[in-house]
Amino acid sequence: MRATIIHAPGDIRVENAPEPKIVAPTDAVIRTVATCVCGSDLWSYRGINPVTEPQPIGHEYVGIVEEVGSDVSNVKPGQFVIGSFIASDNTCPVCRAGYHTSCRHRDFPNGCQAEYVRIPLADGTLVALPEPPAEELIPSLLTLSDVMGTGWYAAKAAEVRPGSTAVVVGDGAVGLCGVIAAKELGAERIIAMSRHAPRQTLALEFGATDVVTERGEEGVARVKELTNGIGADSVLECVGTQQSMHQALQSTRPGGTVGFVGMPHGVQIDGQELFFSHVGLRGGPAPVRAYLPDLIDRVLSGRINSGKVFDLTLPLDEAAEGYKAMDERRAIKALLRP
Amino acid sequence: MRATIIHAPGDIRVENAPEPKIVAPTDAVIRTVATCVCGSDLWSYRGINPVTEPQPIGHEYVGIVEEVGSDVSNVKPGQFVIGSFIASDNTCPVCRAGYHTSCRHRDFPNGCQAEYVRIPLADGTLVALPEPPAEELIPSLLTLSDVMGTGWYAAKAAEVRPGSTAVVVGDGAVGLCGVIAAKELGAERIIAMSRHAPRQTLALEFGATDVVTERGEEGVARVKELTNGIGADSVLECVGTQQSMHQALQSTRPGGTVGFVGMPHGVQIDGQELFFSHVGLRGGPAPVRAYLPDLIDRVLSGRINSGKVFDLTLPLDEAAEGYKAMDERRAIKALLRP
Repeated sequence: MRATIIHAPGDIRVENAPEPKIVAPTDAVIRTVATCVCGSDLWSYRGINPVTEPQPIGHEYVGIVEEVGSDVSNVKPGQFVIGSFIASDNTCPVCRAGYHTSCRHRDFPNGCQAEYVRIPLADGTLVALPEPPAEELIPSLLTLSDVMGTGWYAAKAAEVRPGSTAVVVGDGAVGLCGVIAAKELGAERIIAMSRHAPRQTLALEFGATDVVTERGEEGVARVKELTNGIGADSVLECVGTQQSMHQALQSTRPGGTVGFVGMPHGVQIDGQELFFSHVGLRGGPAPVRAYLPDLIDRVLSGRINSGKVFDLTLPLDEAAEGYKAMDERRAIKALLRP
Repeated sequence: MRATIIHAPGDIRVENAPEPKIVAPTDAVIRTVATCVCGSDLWSYRGINPVTEPQPIGHEYVGIVEEVGSDVSNVKPGQFVIGSFIASDNTCPVCRAGYHTSCRHRDFPNGCQAEYVRIPLADGTLVALPEPPAEELIPSLLTLSDVMGTGWYAAKAAEVRPGSTAVVVGDGAVGLCGVIAAKELGAERIIAMSRHAPRQTLALEFGATDVVTERGEEGVARVKELTNGIGADSVLECVGTQQSMHQALQSTRPGGTVGFVGMPHGVQIDGQELFFSHVGLRGGPAPVRAYLPDLIDRVLSGRINSGKVFDLTLPLDEAAEGYKAMDERRAIKALLRP
């Protein structure tokens, strides 16, 4: 099969690789219908996360079940499935509390930018659609594997409630999905921090009511102006740098909450500053499995169209161009079709 | 009048001082019925917070209104009142959101370890009792000015819910009040971290179901043993050191929450560690004003007896001994009677 391999920072190749097999009786192997490049893949592409040897890459997928292990009963060959970027058993106490990405038996599907992929803990990880979806829904369904679920978690962690004001820091695909989530969860005012015209347009289409182009202290001041001088109820931090976290915390009103889903790189939070801010903080890898049934409904019913974050679609064999376009910010997010 | 002055670390004196006057039309002057020494006063007493010149000290009080400014209408001379350690207008958007200690006009009653004290923003800060309370309720009512309200906020910030498991880190007066709060908010299991027999006894009396004497990694391991291997739903951090914060975060299950009310001294939180923990975090100076009506009811009805945290009662003139006893951990908390 064809599979995407990262050899070194900046060096993405699509190569022939052996097809994955069932290893554990809880595994499934799926034939990938669509996959994509994640902002977090760029951490490796940019050499911020080390790449010491060639390795398969990609963790977002929708596909058709090809084969299941002997212990798998929730999905069967031929079904169209979506699964989380982290595999979970969906039964342990942590999963039952809704935090599947901290599942006590979690495992990591990897190499999903490929024609076939092995999914561990298939019963707990995959959700099957009642029937194969219309072609035009595939991009939106694919976002549920990570990016849309991550935006959703950002909004939930930031405690977005009906009538509230939300700020979204970061105009990447996750931030844009965060705008959708804030809107769906009832935020009345949604302030998107963005200085890129196409992303501003998409943010407004997704439900943003205001766009703030300033960053840092100026961005914070602008948010304060828009929020009665006190800051927003909820802030979705979708970047993961010290600067973006600082901006998020400063933009939140006392008693408000920051949901942070940008994987923190070198972020330190001063305890005393957080104390006197009265701001609540919750982050982490999004437990997208918890949201799949609800979000699938929202996609199938046409309520949300998160697939619009894909502004570049390429054949799998051109994965390298997808990385390059995202790295150079020519594309928001690249969808790959095997 | 007699007033407590801190001259330098370790140097507490009760001296003659001029009686406070109404300065702003929103002020009240009260005659103190009881006051006390706070764990946070010890930061100055121990020289951890600098003391550069002699200053009045103390911020907890109950008393009789002596005089009010021309704009004060909610309280009147002769009434028995309780107020927050931070003055607030109770009307700004931040107060309305329940975070009075970040009130946009907040002010600081100071020098409350004295016979009389000026309370700014009296209408927003003070709550009058319908009639003077029975003498034996005064200690518990006094705790509502700070320590009991702070324990309450710790439990609220940690999202203690009916049936949940709570851990309380810190066996000072705030931690012990945190046990009361966790119990009142319906926690089913309350684990008090304490290695001091009299405090353990009080924690158990207040509703703790388990006492853990180990600290650090061993303490965390013990909590995990008691919580199905995953940690507690809610952890109340009532100390404020790097070690106690680390212990609190490590003791919380993924998706659980730490409420931190120990003023952080030198605490740094690593963003990536917090991210992967899935633990939520909220702290700050407790908005005790928000809780006064409810907590007054609980004291007057005898539901809670938080005054038991005072294991030393002294005449105001012996304030220095109160500080010394608390500093040496001979006393949990010292009540001072003018």
